[in-house]
Amino acid sequence: MNNAPTRPGIEQEQFLAILSREEALARFEAALFPRAVPVEHRPLANALGMALAEDVVAPIDVPPFDRANVDGFAVRSDDLAEAGEGRAVRLALNDEQIACGTEPTLPVLRGTATPISTGGPIPRGADAVVMVEHTEPAGDGISVRRAASPGQFLSYAGSDIARGETLLRAGTLIGSREIGMLAACGVAVLPVTRKPKVAVLSTGDELVQPGAPLPPAGVYDTNGPIVSAAVAENGGEPVFLSAFPDDEATLEAAMREALAGHDMLILSGGTSKGAGDVTHRIIARLGKPGIIAHGVALKPGKPLCLAVCDGKPVVILPGFPTSAMFTFHDMIVPVLRRMAGLPPRTDALVSATVPLRVPSELGRTEFVMVSLVEGQEGLVAYPTGKGSGAITSFTQADGFVRIEALADHLPAGAHVEVTLFTPQVHVPDLVIIGSHCTGLDRVLAPLVRQGLSVRSLSVGSLGGLAAARRGECDLAPIHLFDERTKSYNEPFLLPDLELVPGWRRMQGFVHRKGDKRFEDLSAQAAVMAALTDPTCLMVNRNQGAGTRILIDALLGGTRPDGYWNQPKSHNAVAAAVLQGRADWGVTIAPVAEAAGLSFIPLTEEHYDFALVSARRDRPAVQAFLSSLRSPEVRQALEEAGFRPA
Amino acid sequence: MNNAPTRPGIEQEQFLAILSREEALARFEAALFPRAVPVEHRPLANALGMALAEDVVAPIDVPPFDRANVDGFAVRSDDLAEAGEGRAVRLALNDEQIACGTEPTLPVLRGTATPISTGGPIPRGADAVVMVEHTEPAGDGISVRRAASPGQFLSYAGSDIARGETLLRAGTLIGSREIGMLAACGVAVLPVTRKPKVAVLSTGDELVQPGAPLPPAGVYDTNGPIVSAAVAENGGEPVFLSAFPDDEATLEAAMREALAGHDMLILSGGTSKGAGDVTHRIIARLGKPGIIAHGVALKPGKPLCLAVCDGKPVVILPGFPTSAMFTFHDMIVPVLRRMAGLPPRTDALVSATVPLRVPSELGRTEFVMVSLVEGQEGLVAYPTGKGSGAITSFTQADGFVRIEALADHLPAGAHVEVTLFTPQVHVPDLVIIGSHCTGLDRVLAPLVRQGLSVRSLSVGSLGGLAAARRGECDLAPIHLFDERTKSYNEPFLLPDLELVPGWRRMQGFVHRKGDKRFEDLSAQAAVMAALTDPTCLMVNRNQGAGTRILIDALLGGTRPDGYWNQPKSHNAVAAAVLQGRADWGVTIAPVAEAAGLSFIPLTEEHYDFALVSARRDRPAVQAFLSSLRSPEVRQALEEAGFRPA
Repeated sequence: MNNAPTRPGIEQEQFLAILSREEALARFEAALFPRAVPVEHRPLANALGMALAEDVVAPIDVPPFDRANVDGFAVRSDDLAEAGEGRAVRLALNDEQIACGTEPTLPVLRGTATPISTGGPIPRGADAVVMVEHTEPAGDGISVRRAASPGQFLSYAGSDIARGETLLRAGTLIGSREIGMLAACGVAVLPVTRKPKVAVLSTGDELVQPGAPLPPAGVYDTNGPIVSAAVAENGGEPVFLSAFPDDEATLEAAMREALAGHDMLILSGGTSKGAGDVTHRIIARLGKPGIIAHGVALKPGKPLCLAVCDGKPVVILPGFPTSAMFTFHDMIVPVLRRMAGLPPRTDALVSATVPLRVPSELGRTEFVMVSLVEGQEGLVAYPTGKGSGAITSFTQADGFVRIEALADHLPAGAHVEVTLFTPQVHVPDLVIIGSHCTGLDRVLAPLVRQGLSVRSLSVGSLGGLAAARRGECDLAPIHLFDERTKSYNEPFLLPDLELVPGWRRMQGFVHRKGDKRFEDLSAQAAVMAALTDPTCLMVNRNQGAGTRILIDALLGGTRPDGYWNQPKSHNAVAAAVLQGRADWGVTIAPVAEAAGLSFIPLTEEHYDFALVSARRDRPAVQAFLSSLRSPEVRQALEEAGFRPA
Repeated sequence: MNNAPTRPGIEQEQFLAILSREEALARFEAALFPRAVPVEHRPLANALGMALAEDVVAPIDVPPFDRANVDGFAVRSDDLAEAGEGRAVRLALNDEQIACGTEPTLPVLRGTATPISTGGPIPRGADAVVMVEHTEPAGDGISVRRAASPGQFLSYAGSDIARGETLLRAGTLIGSREIGMLAACGVAVLPVTRKPKVAVLSTGDELVQPGAPLPPAGVYDTNGPIVSAAVAENGGEPVFLSAFPDDEATLEAAMREALAGHDMLILSGGTSKGAGDVTHRIIARLGKPGIIAHGVALKPGKPLCLAVCDGKPVVILPGFPTSAMFTFHDMIVPVLRRMAGLPPRTDALVSATVPLRVPSELGRTEFVMVSLVEGQEGLVAYPTGKGSGAITSFTQADGFVRIEALADHLPAGAHVEVTLFTPQVHVPDLVIIGSHCTGLDRVLAPLVRQGLSVRSLSVGSLGGLAAARRGECDLAPIHLFDERTKSYNEPFLLPDLELVPGWRRMQGFVHRKGDKRFEDLSAQAAVMAALTDPTCLMVNRNQGAGTRILIDALLGGTRPDGYWNQPKSHNAVAAAVLQGRADWGVTIAPVAEAAGLSFIPLTEEHYDFALVSARRDRPAVQAFLSSLRSPEVRQALEEAGFRPA
């Protein structure tokens, strides 16, 4: 209970100076650098992915000797000056054969040749190699009918790598190509920068490690695993110390131990102000200079806290996963890479337009996560839009758009630069934008197995229709009920779109198993029972949902307790009833079944696809239509509780 | 000696069918796929970089409950319908505070509110959260002057990830973002495709492992380490079994053991036909169906051999490192990735023009390794040009250009698609094209430490001048002697170029230490001694080299033994004398000293820079000029045996 909101905490915050992103990063780096990078020596085979700590100068010539590049005979080119189609020159053979690894012992004197294999060292006197195919046996020797140019079919010593040249420079990331160059020079052990050991520690009374059962009010620790993995991806060696409750003494002991044994400490969690206060107080005692920046004019990421304690960086990431990951990449990765001896990351940029107005907060540099799809005039950047509290806002984005602190929005159609999270844009083969249904996964699974890449964005039925009209998707899944015609979807089609029938989803009244008030009733009777019980609480659906129209019809104009609880998905309705925040609601059969709720059928909802006619003949669209109609997929849909149209 | 060229070997080869690249790959894949991928279960923390073996369906909703997104109070939005600036609504406080991890116990009844922290579960009855900043204390309760919309400041259960949706599909490469999604759902153990174990084995009597001293005629094993590293980079687990001599019995035992304990066997080496025959004979006995393709119409890479023995791929890569790596990436990586359960690699392409005519062999698909620089009209692709025998042809290239089998050249200025080896082109800050000198490394080192990226391409002085005129570089290092004016470099400048003085390199007569014929003589006298000794052999330099002009002057028109031995670098001259292929030559002092040769000074050569005037003010060029003139660099040049101008 010690981390519930308190008024003193709020007043205190007003004294904290909010720094700009640039100022915060500059102060953080100034407190950390320059610093010596710790060097370790690794065998070549274990150096992959490490940063070279010192320049490497080639210790030998490569090749180390003049080398034959073909199988044939080492000759003196001027012996063959007169050779030609009509004029064979005969050369006596010296009494040795030079294989790879054989040191020549006899010189090639005038009028002689020495048999030599590819890779063999050229003997003294020879200045060219004649291919075995261009010779004929002639008694004890060979006969040649082609002139040879000096240097023909041989590589001179040092022509690949010259002794004394700087082969690789400090800071180079060691990949297979670098390993090849080093091996060619005989370098077996490399000076590399030791990876910074980064302790990752989650804080929060509510955190549960993945794999353990989730108690009520508990959430799985997402930041611990994702930050650890991102540390590994950016040159650090993560050591995940698990999650700690917000107990000051325990946490301080853990933080002191973590700081003593590692090069950097990253904390995450502490979404509430009370929890944050604990870690901030501890940091102030950990070492000098302490907190460098607490609060950055950055969205997402305002609560970021940067500290340096006795020369080591200590970071408190914001608790929301997308805020945590975004600030990690934007503010921590530059420092981590520098500590790892790596050059700055180079970001890949692409140009795109935004399809909709994107609001932004004045006074904070705002970063909007986006997904990219191919539009009619280039790439279109869709804000992923679930907010910084959602892990998928970050994980399903292709990159981000920056909105400067002085702008309060981006207009629809604005041209933007998208910074990619991965070096390349992978434009998907099939793009589906609209309402999501778990049945869709059944249709897409065979496509993905065929190697097609599919992007599906959840923006609701109307958002999907708008994207389809702009040509930004192939298909828009919709389930829109028209009150006037009492029919689904068809009345909402726009020009250039055609309807592809999908499946029906049974809607029903749901309640907790064992709730005697509703057992053995019809849906209409159950609603009546609910309306007449003053302790009974409903959960509604959002305005515009097909289910909402159904609920309003059931309620007949009344607005019982819980009417304003209006979540946007079938799953949220099931969770509210299951967890006792409501006693009844309307959701679809597969969701009710998965949640273990009692289900009283009401009516069927139509989940169909608005297909962009101009895209019908694309191979991926044809594959989608085949999959939708295939007996296997229809059976899978039925097994999942859907009724294919 | 058993691997020297033999006539029977050549005749035998004519019976081998050379397959096209596409046909060879298709037959290889048909013999290997479909096949089951072995699945292992890994904890999330050890799954980074692995391929997901099965689809993962979200087992829970994320968030698992309706969650507060700010610190404040859980309320019923209709209680605040009338609230406004002029009208405060008072709410009584329920007797609990909901922190993260606290399960609510009391419902929010009409006219009440419950304090709640960010991340806390919304209690029954509440449908919105009011921020603590928008409330005032009022006795035992709070006073609110703003209306609240339903759903305000809360995230509904399942709004991030919905239970039952397919979270990740089989074949997804697990990165930090995937780990975040899985952790959020509580997934702790993942089904991943076990990495294929790939045995890598080098063959060749001449091979020495890096770190060991290099005997005469020995070369370091480059392919073993580079193939092992490239296997690791492409989803395999390499096991390097070291290099084996071409002894049939030993090699067969090693290959049988390797095949038994691994999923794939890659051999490299065997540059000579004799050596290759041994491994081919062994493969024929290893298992069915055996050799699938031996000889592919691919350049580089013609000697590639693809086999399948008892269901396992066995590959003999060509011996030359660039051929080996190119064929590995082109033909083996697709199979390896498929065995590792990974989707096909997506290649990044960029458009460029070739600055020069690029010859190609008719009838073979030819791949030309190129380096990219920014030209006046986009990217320019320079063939790296040292041939497939050179490791640097591959390692210093940015990518490659494909020339179809039916073309015999690319004309100068041709527009080409370059397939990149890395996902992004990194256009360097400073481009230097021309003649190389180890002194240049001293000037560039401070620039690289400042974080500038530098590309230097060795194409000789005249090639550098041509590149400078086309605007493809900032500076062209040159050392050209004009016979007419008896001066260096200045006479060769073209319009729009200016001369930046570099340094002088002392040229001299070199011989092995202890060679009595030349000891204590002047350079002129040493040449005379050489010319009068019939057993004495010289090493010359290539036509066009400044050193060659000097040598021709010394020889006064005579062409002694060794005159046609015309390597292209100072290092090759030193190696020829040191290794006894020649008795004397002319090279520069630092190279003679590094090789441990006796050096008799002759004259100084001028190594200067042709600067593209239009590029003089670029920051990287200014940094170069500052570095060139800095006392530290001048001192470093002097210590390395150069005399700064």
